Amino acid sequence: MERRDLRADDVAVRVDYCGVCHSDLHALRDHGGRSAGGDEAAGASAAAAAAADETAEATDGGSSVPLVPGHEFIGVVTEIGPEVQRFAIGDVVAVGNIVDACLVCDMCTAGQENFCREFPTLTYGGVDRRDGRPTLGAYAREYVVREEFAHRVPEGLDPSAAAPLLCAGITVWEPLTALEVGPGVRVAVVGLGGLGHLAVKLATALGAETTVISRSAGKLEDARQLGAADLLVSGDGPAMAAARGRFDVIVDTVAVSHELAPYLELLALDGTLAQVGYLGPVTVETTDLLLGRKKLTSAGSGGMAKTAQLLEFCAEHGVVADVEVLPSSRVGEALDRLARGDVRFRFVLDMSDLDVDPS
Amino acid sequence: MERRDLRADDVAVRVDYCGVCHSDLHALRDHGGRSAGGDEAAGASAAAAAAADETAEATDGGSSVPLVPGHEFIGVVTEIGPEVQRFAIGDVVAVGNIVDACLVCDMCTAGQENFCREFPTLTYGGVDRRDGRPTLGAYAREYVVREEFAHRVPEGLDPSAAAPLLCAGITVWEPLTALEVGPGVRVAVVGLGGLGHLAVKLATALGAETTVISRSAGKLEDARQLGAADLLVSGDGPAMAAARGRFDVIVDTVAVSHELAPYLELLALDGTLAQVGYLGPVTVETTDLLLGRKKLTSAGSGGMAKTAQLLEFCAEHGVVADVEVLPSSRVGEALDRLARGDVRFRFVLDMSDLDVDPS
Repeated sequence: MERRDLRADDVAVRVDYCGVCHSDLHALRDHGGRSAGGDEAAGASAAAAAAADETAEATDGGSSVPLVPGHEFIGVVTEIGPEVQRFAIGDVVAVGNIVDACLVCDMCTAGQENFCREFPTLTYGGVDRRDGRPTLGAYAREYVVREEFAHRVPEGLDPSAAAPLLCAGITVWEPLTALEVGPGVRVAVVGLGGLGHLAVKLATALGAETTVISRSAGKLEDARQLGAADLLVSGDGPAMAAARGRFDVIVDTVAVSHELAPYLELLALDGTLAQVGYLGPVTVETTDLLLGRKKLTSAGSGGMAKTAQLLEFCAEHGVVADVEVLPSSRVGEALDRLARGDVRFRFVLDMSDLDVDPS
Repeated sequence: MERRDLRADDVAVRVDYCGVCHSDLHALRDHGGRSAGGDEAAGASAAAAAAADETAEATDGGSSVPLVPGHEFIGVVTEIGPEVQRFAIGDVVAVGNIVDACLVCDMCTAGQENFCREFPTLTYGGVDRRDGRPTLGAYAREYVVREEFAHRVPEGLDPSAAAPLLCAGITVWEPLTALEVGPGVRVAVVGLGGLGHLAVKLATALGAETTVISRSAGKLEDARQLGAADLLVSGDGPAMAAARGRFDVIVDTVAVSHELAPYLELLALDGTLAQVGYLGPVTVETTDLLLGRKKLTSAGSGGMAKTAQLLEFCAEHGVVADVEVLPSSRVGEALDRLARGDVRFRFVLDMSDLDVDPS
């Protein structure tokens, strides 16, 4: 795979660590064509096999564009364009799931390039705004990015464990901060995966009392170690009934369609349910919002300013992801295990094995 | 119809004016049995005929309990129980859509008796908490109510035009104030009926720049007279596209199921869509909330403290409903015309004609 020649405002990054995001699975499955997979696990296995070739050529999806996933990575600047202002060769930088935007619309000027009115350019699976070519992600040893979309990594953050902050982290940081989570705010986090475990750590570091809601009582020890005060088992009817009205903010990280009413029931007056795991259509009974003046919202990405704020916060509070680092050659295994939920709590690929010339 | 004998904390009210609420139509239709009606207009006509008899006996719904609608009324205290503290005979009082609650749960103690954990007692169609008898509404000359659920009417409010504040008014006041509508906040109100016209008046009086969204360009003059700065026609594609991201708060008063996406599109960053007109299930695309970190909420009633605050605000700012007052004998006409949307903007029944003994 070849990256573009550097433009005046580009930096070239040697990718050291790239997180494996649940959306990578979806993208690979969609790219391969839903007809190839059937159920999610089968699709993921196909995806993993394809991804193991590094660039997955679609065989039945009608697309001839390769898909290279990877949109939460940290590396070192190896080259800079002549107009680059903020970075020098050798700087440790991080990139998330967007790599360009118009920078002039109301959303961009509000620091929310992720909501750019012209739609931001995605780190992979998007189309470059200038040359019209597809963007290819960071399951690779190099990435070339416009400097405005790279972040300086603060001192003290372990690059492998910090990489997931760039997507999983910012996805939960946006609603936590927008909803003013802090001391005295009662937060619940539904699901304890890549997003959920960071939501627990961040909410707790922000000073909130945090509860994990899980299908499994076996998650109690994990929840406590992440900083949660309590675990609520979603299938425990009496416990759920007793928790009615208990939370000001619920961050719901469940990645598949599910009923929202049981969670809305747990909200206090003026509470908010933020969906961050599932991006399809959801149906709610208006009265479930009305009774208690509750709100439903969603988040799935972040702007540059908020991402920089998150990195500073994490360096200051010692928050990183709990990761399992695998050499990039084992990407297929990582994707298969992620599809099965067999990860505590985020896979990160170490790209250094790509330096060995296989020839 | 007989009211209960006064309890120690009851006041008896001579009902002077009672507003005709859209939910009265629904209640009458449901009471008559959906099978009797078919479409809404037919149901409403049947309801109107029944209501014209003052108490509608269900004929095919299986219920033998009469339904008397009416839950936004103003009148004069005619008698007080021995322990009544706040009212004296001759006081002008107002009552809304709830008449009792537990007063000890978290919602009640937060001043939101409308969200009482034991569910509040509705002014009609509910069950009295003490004697277990059905509550009968204020399409009548007398109402007996626990004093905590009556409001003193401030000086200067015309009772006939103020009656709709007790349901239509508080229903929009709750989200307007919870969402901190005031100077610098851009508000849109969808629909210009009983709820919508009060939302425009109140948002404007709160200092917000207010826009009406309507299917009909013919509503411009009405919108301006109510205080709106602008009218946006929902079927005007280019105008709707140009208004993308323009509002911080949208109060949606449309009383039937409809697509929310076109309104979510109009919200600015962190904006909120408050549904107050329709109480059934709604489906939204999570991404329509995600892009711009938007929120969906709902409202349909108010607590005692907020209602008292609303009445004071309205007296101070000269805000009342635009009403068409009809003698109570013409309730059928009012309901029929309301079902057709033929009202500017709220019918209020004058109950004084009931003093004439028909015998």
